[in-house]
Amino acid sequence: MDRTIEPRVLKGFRDFLPKEEARRSAMLRTIAQAFETCGFAPLQTPAIEYLDILAGKYGDEGEKLLYQFRDHGERDVALRYDLTVPLARVVSLHRDLPRPFRRYQIGTVWRAEKPAHGRFREFVQCDADIVGSSSPLADADCIAAVVLAFKALEIQRFKVRLGHRGVLNALLESLQIVDPSTQVDTLRALDRLDKIGDEAVIAILSEHPGVGLERGTAIVQAIREGETGERLASLGFTVGGGAAYRHLRMVSDALENMGLGDHVTWDLSIARGLDYYTGTVFETTLLDLPSVGSVASGGRYDGLLRMFGMPEVPAVGISIGIDRLFSALQEMGRLPDAPVGPVAVVCPVGEEALPRSLHVLADLRAAGIASEVVPDPSWRLKKALQYAAHRGARFALIAGEAEVASGTVTVKDLGRGEQRAWPVSDVVREVRKALSAGEGGRADG
Amino acid sequence: MDRTIEPRVLKGFRDFLPKEEARRSAMLRTIAQAFETCGFAPLQTPAIEYLDILAGKYGDEGEKLLYQFRDHGERDVALRYDLTVPLARVVSLHRDLPRPFRRYQIGTVWRAEKPAHGRFREFVQCDADIVGSSSPLADADCIAAVVLAFKALEIQRFKVRLGHRGVLNALLESLQIVDPSTQVDTLRALDRLDKIGDEAVIAILSEHPGVGLERGTAIVQAIREGETGERLASLGFTVGGGAAYRHLRMVSDALENMGLGDHVTWDLSIARGLDYYTGTVFETTLLDLPSVGSVASGGRYDGLLRMFGMPEVPAVGISIGIDRLFSALQEMGRLPDAPVGPVAVVCPVGEEALPRSLHVLADLRAAGIASEVVPDPSWRLKKALQYAAHRGARFALIAGEAEVASGTVTVKDLGRGEQRAWPVSDVVREVRKALSAGEGGRADG
Repeated sequence: MDRTIEPRVLKGFRDFLPKEEARRSAMLRTIAQAFETCGFAPLQTPAIEYLDILAGKYGDEGEKLLYQFRDHGERDVALRYDLTVPLARVVSLHRDLPRPFRRYQIGTVWRAEKPAHGRFREFVQCDADIVGSSSPLADADCIAAVVLAFKALEIQRFKVRLGHRGVLNALLESLQIVDPSTQVDTLRALDRLDKIGDEAVIAILSEHPGVGLERGTAIVQAIREGETGERLASLGFTVGGGAAYRHLRMVSDALENMGLGDHVTWDLSIARGLDYYTGTVFETTLLDLPSVGSVASGGRYDGLLRMFGMPEVPAVGISIGIDRLFSALQEMGRLPDAPVGPVAVVCPVGEEALPRSLHVLADLRAAGIASEVVPDPSWRLKKALQYAAHRGARFALIAGEAEVASGTVTVKDLGRGEQRAWPVSDVVREVRKALSAGEGGRADG
Repeated sequence: MDRTIEPRVLKGFRDFLPKEEARRSAMLRTIAQAFETCGFAPLQTPAIEYLDILAGKYGDEGEKLLYQFRDHGERDVALRYDLTVPLARVVSLHRDLPRPFRRYQIGTVWRAEKPAHGRFREFVQCDADIVGSSSPLADADCIAAVVLAFKALEIQRFKVRLGHRGVLNALLESLQIVDPSTQVDTLRALDRLDKIGDEAVIAILSEHPGVGLERGTAIVQAIREGETGERLASLGFTVGGGAAYRHLRMVSDALENMGLGDHVTWDLSIARGLDYYTGTVFETTLLDLPSVGSVASGGRYDGLLRMFGMPEVPAVGISIGIDRLFSALQEMGRLPDAPVGPVAVVCPVGEEALPRSLHVLADLRAAGIASEVVPDPSWRLKKALQYAAHRGARFALIAGEAEVASGTVTVKDLGRGEQRAWPVSDVVREVRKALSAGEGGRADG
């Protein structure tokens, strides 16, 4: 037991110390609340799954990032990479679940990425999905849940961008770009629009023998016109793109009718890397910090459940990347504050005052007022008060010789510097009154 | 993408479907709230640690249960086995943390145990610890946090049992049982008291050449007398056991003064298996289902931080095993109910009613009323109402041709069978009024 181990944390992994964790968990509670308000019910799944459940779902690049190992029973297992494949597994395993199945899940996922600014190997996803509905209302409702969550987090300046692989394909086909490898090259180029800009993408496309300057320009323009564009509107009448276009149209109309139109825009350039998306795709940009990338993404994955032996079941979902969002808000100085210390610290001065102090402590806690007692009743008053201030408490409740003799406790408001002695039975009421009287903050400001 | 994978879950791992998960997460929120009320602040640590951080801390048996593997960078890593060793690692790494450091952590841990009734390979621990205080008040406050959490969970019939290795050793020494291997044999026998009973343990001890009938009986009696016993009280004056005895005495006095004495008792037979405990030890028994074992355990581990190169730092903590507690409450039929569906389902009848319905949906959600819209506006009213009832909603909000024409929405109370049409602008107020009017339950009872 005596060798010394160097305390350290793996790269890409983090400790969240109280100040950060208080804010993070408050954010997670807010998101869970918003999802529940939108009629999503909570689900939880294991962190470890059989490897074959997760393999073959995330493309070659994703597959390499799986944390996989042999367990004690020589089974090949892996840590979950996202919450979508486990959801598909759950729905395939528990076939009696009602459908549409509206679930949210907040959980940690692991990916052996190269660690970088704002990119971690362990992070938390907050997912809202609807399995068993092909209606555009389902797409809209997943997006609505995220928009309401962001608003509840007091984030106002963001846009959910909507795309649809079918509409993009129809656009290419309307320009007679039908060769599959040319289509893939084109999508890859379009995927870089936000990074390198329109001109550079048009330049790439104009040099491609299957595209050329004229069609390259037309594609980029059509995408930039978004939902207001004539070219796209006309696609509503083509056969292949028609259904996709109408679906996307109904998704944005529904969001408009929910009063969320300001936070939604079309962007056909997004394609999402994951293998399993089949229709609509969503990404979310923070307008004041677009460089962090998408903070909430998702789409339709109507084919995923077939992989677990189910008949085709339509499904759609969206996922908030809380770690990226948290980093971005931190960078912008917009993290909401969350208290980490007690409201009151009880300060017995001398052993004789300890029983009285513990009575008061119990009363405070029973009233739901976060409180603690100084670590050592032999401390002098000055040290006890320093401790209370250091803990960020609003009140120090002092019980010394005089107080014990008179049956009182001195309530010192550390925020305002006032103090007054109260009979023991009145202490909780007076603390409550002072708290509800308002603004006078905690000692740590 | 087309091979079929059998959906399944690893043994010892579980899905928590919405009804269970809603209750489980409500329990976790209640516990977090109780811990915060007791002045503990949240911490979070990674699921994966360097293997050497966790190795050598849990005894030989524990060590075998570590999920360990090589990561992509050929590092030996392991999934966390508990939250105590990561806490020690955090305090050793972040040396500027204020002390005493009062933290709680709620997190998943993994142990490759043989799965059994109520024993899982993945489970959640809820820990409250105080690092940097040797005061009995710290022991008492960790226990108080658990007692308040249990009360908040509406669990009344439980006892936290307190032991102390030093007192037990002093008891043996007072009977001249000083040979180390005899001491270990005696502790092992005492550890079985609850399982096999006093007589059987005395029989084992009486056959031990280093103990014998007389002393075996004396030990078991002293333990059964608990804190009221004369033999133990007299130990208060012996040198070795004196400090330990006084410490334990002050822990129970503090809990008594906090008004929690009814939930605390001495039980010197508990020793806790983990290598790192050095003083007080705690276990918690549900009086109506003692067979599930301890549902909240802990103790002092003053030596643990030295293993990470720190000077000796006193530390004490306790951990609620939420999965065992959850199973026990489930078995006793005492799980509190938690809603999983929406309060209201909006039922547009016909496409024309959809915009109106989505307005109303947005109003309900903005007011924090959990609500959703039926998946398909082409459904007939009967099917829509069945869906609303099936979702467990209290209200169906119907917008059909008549309602659209008159600018109203029909609010049907599925719990009471009443219905009435309201102007759109009044719907939220009327739903709220009906909800606060009270008992009329959800459609699923």
